[in-house]
Amino acid sequence: MSVIYERVALVGLGLIAGSMSLAMRRAGLAGESVGTARSAETRQIAREIGLVDRVVDSAAEAVAGADLVVLAVPVGAMGAVAGQIAPHLKPGATVSDVGSVKRAVIEAVAPHIPEGVHFIPAHPLAGTEHSGPRAGFAELFEGRFCLLTPTPEADRAAVDRLASLWRAMGSQVEMTDADHHDLVLAVTSHAPHLIAYTMVGVADDLRRVTDREVIRYSAAGFRDFTRIAASDPVMWRDVFLNNRGATLEILGRFTEELFALQKAIRDGDGDFLQAYFTRTRAIRRGIIEAGQDTNAPDFGRSGAR
Amino acid sequence: MSVIYERVALVGLGLIAGSMSLAMRRAGLAGESVGTARSAETRQIAREIGLVDRVVDSAAEAVAGADLVVLAVPVGAMGAVAGQIAPHLKPGATVSDVGSVKRAVIEAVAPHIPEGVHFIPAHPLAGTEHSGPRAGFAELFEGRFCLLTPTPEADRAAVDRLASLWRAMGSQVEMTDADHHDLVLAVTSHAPHLIAYTMVGVADDLRRVTDREVIRYSAAGFRDFTRIAASDPVMWRDVFLNNRGATLEILGRFTEELFALQKAIRDGDGDFLQAYFTRTRAIRRGIIEAGQDTNAPDFGRSGAR
Repeated sequence: MSVIYERVALVGLGLIAGSMSLAMRRAGLAGESVGTARSAETRQIAREIGLVDRVVDSAAEAVAGADLVVLAVPVGAMGAVAGQIAPHLKPGATVSDVGSVKRAVIEAVAPHIPEGVHFIPAHPLAGTEHSGPRAGFAELFEGRFCLLTPTPEADRAAVDRLASLWRAMGSQVEMTDADHHDLVLAVTSHAPHLIAYTMVGVADDLRRVTDREVIRYSAAGFRDFTRIAASDPVMWRDVFLNNRGATLEILGRFTEELFALQKAIRDGDGDFLQAYFTRTRAIRRGIIEAGQDTNAPDFGRSGAR
Repeated sequence: MSVIYERVALVGLGLIAGSMSLAMRRAGLAGESVGTARSAETRQIAREIGLVDRVVDSAAEAVAGADLVVLAVPVGAMGAVAGQIAPHLKPGATVSDVGSVKRAVIEAVAPHIPEGVHFIPAHPLAGTEHSGPRAGFAELFEGRFCLLTPTPEADRAAVDRLASLWRAMGSQVEMTDADHHDLVLAVTSHAPHLIAYTMVGVADDLRRVTDREVIRYSAAGFRDFTRIAASDPVMWRDVFLNNRGATLEILGRFTEELFALQKAIRDGDGDFLQAYFTRTRAIRRGIIEAGQDTNAPDFGRSGAR
């Protein structure tokens, strides 16, 4: 493939930025990648493992002369970073981000973007439970969706160029509205994460009573919750604080449903339970047909002994 | 390895019984395996794929002359099956089960067990989201715990023999009390399953509004819930109905915690959220150290595109 941006600046060097750098390098999509991170330790690790072509010590330095700037910091830090880089952005450059929330990021970042610079928010629906500069890998985005939420006034050529970068890293690119994005992600990601964190927290309380049985017997279902609940705490704190309305709405619906199922258990209403559990099976089939998971019967235990 | 039971009867031919048969065959642990299932279709499939050495049409026929009888039917059907087989059990035989609930199974089965037959309840903590006679595989129990809940009066030699069978199929065997089992499993399995079913149900409602986006964007966390919620509806209906007290207790604790986290989101209490999410990470480390999952950073997506 050919170079899409001559110089790409990555602000933040965690799982997503690291994976972008490796994916761009593998396919030759960036003339040069420059990266920075707030923590000196992260920058040092990134230098050691050659995560980007050049590691610099400040966001201002990183974005100087960059054709594409990707903000890959926790959602709550996006506004401050945008303020720092704004005076140093090259005219005609594109600023994007990889935040899991879009409306709050737009509100925090857009006011800082100078005239003549394009701001095109993005969210790659990809990740693992690991974080930090060593967590990235070039294949992370393969077959995954990347949602762009440009405003109607956004420059069409700039949007197409960013979309072509994500496609070249393996993603399926879709355009959507920021508010709609935030509602859909509240269902598919934010509420499930909070629920997983909660269940693991409950188990943690009980674990003290039961001498680590909760951990030893985790393979019966709980294990999958702990994987989700091992994700980056700061990232997720910011997601919930910045997608408050939609997350609380979905959690409200969740609680209603949970109470209905609890009542069915208490009342011994087996027909209700069986019908409910049969309906949810169909969703799983849809996900496998959509290529977003495999049907391999290993319950996530491949290689586990 | 050498034969542990001359004849093993499997009543029910789903995921667990099928996997037992394949594991016993691979290691030569049973002289002969005989199986039966309520549905003629299941029996026919089992015959076609040679799941057991001999498929018979009734539980009574299956258990005749068997040294070990394994009840591998939904928890709610255990009592009725025990009643059917009781007159046909061989003196000195062992009856066991593989139910996910132990107190209710003991109450339903024990009264039917004749003098001179040993009843030793068991629960292998292993499974996948698939079910039926084609779902089994010989490796299912490798590295997984199998919990036995014999009464204090149980015959020691019979317990040791059953334990040696499970060890020879790859399991780590532990002894525990039935009530304690039911409480621990409510935390590690039953409550997580109900929560996963609930979240998938909520998404199903919303899916109709959002044109399958929930399915397409499931990789962001929701996908793992759908895997859990794809498990056998009848099996899970019976689990909840038969471990009602412990499940409702844990769900009560869960709701309390969830409300505390919801309040923190509403109040913008980032410190509370971050501290909570940091604490839950430690549990994940414990599970990996205990060998119950791998640390591979694939978020369950190996092979998925």
